Amino acid sequence: MRTLHHSPLSAESRMARLALREKGVPFETVVEPFWERREAFLALNPAGEVPVLTEEDGSVVAGAAALLEYIDEVAPLPPLIGATPGERAETRRLVGWFRYTFAHEVTGNILGEKVMRRFNGGGQPSSAAIRAGLANLHVHLDYIGWLNERRAWLAGPSFSLADIAAAAQLSVLDYLGDIPWARHDGARDWYARVKSRPSFCAVLEDRVVGIPPAAHYGDLDF
Amino acid sequence: MRTLHHSPLSAESRMARLALREKGVPFETVVEPFWERREAFLALNPAGEVPVLTEEDGSVVAGAAALLEYIDEVAPLPPLIGATPGERAETRRLVGWFRYTFAHEVTGNILGEKVMRRFNGGGQPSSAAIRAGLANLHVHLDYIGWLNERRAWLAGPSFSLADIAAAAQLSVLDYLGDIPWARHDGARDWYARVKSRPSFCAVLEDRVVGIPPAAHYGDLDF
Repeated sequence: MRTLHHSPLSAESRMARLALREKGVPFETVVEPFWERREAFLALNPAGEVPVLTEEDGSVVAGAAALLEYIDEVAPLPPLIGATPGERAETRRLVGWFRYTFAHEVTGNILGEKVMRRFNGGGQPSSAAIRAGLANLHVHLDYIGWLNERRAWLAGPSFSLADIAAAAQLSVLDYLGDIPWARHDGARDWYARVKSRPSFCAVLEDRVVGIPPAAHYGDLDF
Repeated sequence: MRTLHHSPLSAESRMARLALREKGVPFETVVEPFWERREAFLALNPAGEVPVLTEEDGSVVAGAAALLEYIDEVAPLPPLIGATPGERAETRRLVGWFRYTFAHEVTGNILGEKVMRRFNGGGQPSSAAIRAGLANLHVHLDYIGWLNERRAWLAGPSFSLADIAAAAQLSVLDYLGDIPWARHDGARDWYARVKSRPSFCAVLEDRVVGIPPAAHYGDLDF
């Protein structure tokens, strides 16, 4: 059986889980406390990051972007990148946008401070960083709303890895209760559609010891 | 004609230039001072980052990873990712490694402090950051040497985007004279082979006003 090493509040891990489920690929999961940098885990992925997929033959796929492309290559249906080179470039641009620009400007500032510092032993959270993350979040939610107005899904006519990448980031912040949905109807409309997909069930059931989710986290109507 | 908006000392831009040349795709270049965040450029790429490719029909491809995949899709030969899903995953893992782990731990600390601060008006370079970057660089050069011992090219038997991603980062640091080649024979051997490829000519001719390159920068024998 394919095994995915992941971490429940890692947006990168959630991307892989969502993509595997959208493709209908069976897999087992192992929760990896990647911040402990276990030697056995570093042997799988020298970068020490989740997600990592191991195949039954022992081969290893690491690196979240590499893993998404790999999943799309071994399980081409349903297509999650796009039909033409142009559509595929737009999907990948948005995946990069959410994985780096959004992750750096928003998720890193909020989740990094509120949660990861506990695991890393990094001291008190910086309230300035959290404030910056929350301020940046509005700009990104507006952008999602802007895309939602113009396209059926974020990258174009079909549900794609762009929706998965965005939902992976937002779902982690939503777990912490940090998304101001009331002020962002467009983004909420899009997220409600993603959230109701069967691939999202497991993510909505995630619970982390000592960090209870926001009350509305699992609700399809929020 | 395809036009690439790039910046000479941007490793991400160099990746795109190298990939286009390896594929033999004709293109024009425009140097973009991306730190000025020109409105016309933000309209092409809301992330405000280089590289950006514009096609003759006006379509735009932005995001360095998306652009590499796009180039490989519109010009499949010679293949630069790999033959099997496993090989392709290994290439993409290494591309991610150099674009993020290496860029964050090394290039950002060195180039970011020595060069980008001038353009950003960010004040004095941090010597602590530069020292950290140079210390991390040794670990990464050892890793390149380790791969070079085991494989013909970084990701496997063929020259690939992994070599391009690594060479893009190293060539920028080499411009600044910051690579301790004397202590890293394996990495030097690999880089000498990359450097002598025709696709590398234009990169070796890059000059930035006010920042002369290290004396050996363009030499194939260094």
